[in-house]
Amino acid sequence: MKDGNYENLMCRDLSRVKLIIAYDGSDFHGFQKQDGGLRTVQGELEVILTELFGSPIEVFGASRTDAGVHAVGQTVHFDIPEGSVPPEKVAAAVRHRLPPDMAAVSSTSVTAEFHARFSAVAKRYLYIINNSEIQTPFLRNAVLMIRQPLDRDEIRKAMKHFVGEHDFSAFRNIGSGETNPVRTIHEFELEEDGIFLKFKVRGSAFLYKMVRNLVGTLCEVGFVRMSPDRIPEIIESKDRRQAGPTMSPEGLYLVNIEY
Amino acid sequence: MKDGNYENLMCRDLSRVKLIIAYDGSDFHGFQKQDGGLRTVQGELEVILTELFGSPIEVFGASRTDAGVHAVGQTVHFDIPEGSVPPEKVAAAVRHRLPPDMAAVSSTSVTAEFHARFSAVAKRYLYIINNSEIQTPFLRNAVLMIRQPLDRDEIRKAMKHFVGEHDFSAFRNIGSGETNPVRTIHEFELEEDGIFLKFKVRGSAFLYKMVRNLVGTLCEVGFVRMSPDRIPEIIESKDRRQAGPTMSPEGLYLVNIEY
Repeated sequence: MKDGNYENLMCRDLSRVKLIIAYDGSDFHGFQKQDGGLRTVQGELEVILTELFGSPIEVFGASRTDAGVHAVGQTVHFDIPEGSVPPEKVAAAVRHRLPPDMAAVSSTSVTAEFHARFSAVAKRYLYIINNSEIQTPFLRNAVLMIRQPLDRDEIRKAMKHFVGEHDFSAFRNIGSGETNPVRTIHEFELEEDGIFLKFKVRGSAFLYKMVRNLVGTLCEVGFVRMSPDRIPEIIESKDRRQAGPTMSPEGLYLVNIEY
Repeated sequence: MKDGNYENLMCRDLSRVKLIIAYDGSDFHGFQKQDGGLRTVQGELEVILTELFGSPIEVFGASRTDAGVHAVGQTVHFDIPEGSVPPEKVAAAVRHRLPPDMAAVSSTSVTAEFHARFSAVAKRYLYIINNSEIQTPFLRNAVLMIRQPLDRDEIRKAMKHFVGEHDFSAFRNIGSGETNPVRTIHEFELEEDGIFLKFKVRGSAFLYKMVRNLVGTLCEVGFVRMSPDRIPEIIESKDRRQAGPTMSPEGLYLVNIEY
C-alpha cells in the first residue's frame, strides 16, 4: 500500500483535499521526494502543509514530473484534520507560504476514494520549442531553443501515427518501475504561435520520459532526417534505439489532469 | 570625452553599428561595466564583440539600467572595422555567441554622428505588478508581486499630475552624477491585463531610479495611503522623502529608445 494512505481513510476525522498547483521546475529535482535533502515539489509542499496544519501531511501527486519539468495544472491530494481549514480555502491558506516558483491555483473537497494518481483518467502535456534565431531571455528555462527550422507539415504527418492505443516501449526510458507499456494517445497536435512551436498531447497516461521521447522523435522528422512513415515501424519495433532522443526538460509542461 | 569615442570617428575605416538588444536583468549587475569582474550587459557584449571582430570594441548604451532591471529594446552603438561584417548582419553574427539571458533583436548602419545615449529623444519604460493572490512562478523575476489590491482609479488620477515638464528632484535617488533634475513625461498610463498592472511611461529621459520612485509613489496612492492630490505638492517640494519608496527592480523594463 505504498501509494495509498489507507490508515488515514479509516479515521473519521480527516478531510481529503484536491489541490491544483503550478511550478517552474527549473530549481526542483523533480516532483517526487528524494533522499539527501534535494529540493522537490512534494517535499516543499509537505513541509508547508505540515507547518500549516501542525501535524504530518503526506502529499500524493498525479504525475511525478522529472527535474526541470514544469507544471501549470499538477494535481495532488492529501488529508487534513476535519474542521481545521475548509478544503476550498486550503489553496488560499498555503499561497502565502509557497516559494516564488510555486503557485496554488485552487482546492476542493473530495471523497476518501479520490486519489490524485489512481483516479486520473487523462493527462495533458505541452512541449514548447522556440524555433527561431532569436533567444527569448525571459523564457530561457521555460522553452527549448532550436535554431534549425523544423518542418511543421512533416511533424503533423508523423503525429497522426501516435494517436490511438499502442505499445509505446520504443518511447519509454528505463528507470521507472512500470510494467505495462500500452498507452492511449487521444490527441496530438502542433500549434504554431509566433516563433514558438507547441506540441500538445492528451493521453490516458504516459510512460517514463515518453512525452520527451515523442517530441524528440518528431524533431527528427521535423529536421527531415526521418520520414513520418517510419513512425509505425518504430512503434512496432518496441526498440528504444529506433526512436529519437529524449528532449531536455525545460520545454515540458504538465498542463492538467482529468478525473 | 568619457562617453564618446572621438578618436574612432577620425578613422575612415570604421563603421558605426546601432544594435537593439533584450535581456533578463536578473543575473546582471546592471548594464554598466564595473570593476571587480561583476557580470554586466556592457561587459558581456564587449567581450563577445571583441572576440567576433578580433579587435577591442567599446559599447555605448542608451540607458544604464540597474541590477535586476530588464530590457526588451535597449539600444547600443559601437564601431566595427569597415568591411568586416555588414552592420545589418551584426545582430545575426552575435546571436549565436550570446548567453541565454540576452538576445540581439536587430542591427542597422548609422552615421558617425549617432550616439546611443546622446542622440536619444525619448525613452519608454514599463513596470509590471502581479496584483493578485496567486504567484506566477514563470515570471518570478519578471514581475513584482503585490497581494494587497491597488486602486486603479486613484493611480490614474495621480499619474496625470506627472505628465509634462517638471523638476523631478523628489523622485531622484542620490548616486547619479546628473545635475539638471528637469525632465518631461510625455505619456503615463496604467493598463490592466488580467492579474497584471502595467505602468507605461514615455519621457524625454529619466533621473536615477526615477521610474521606480514614480511607481513606488503611485502604489502609495493605490493603497489609498496617499491622495492623488498630494502629487503636485510632492513635485513642488523637490524633497525625496515626500515621495514613495523605490520599487524593486524585477518589475521594470526598458521598452525602447526613440531617436
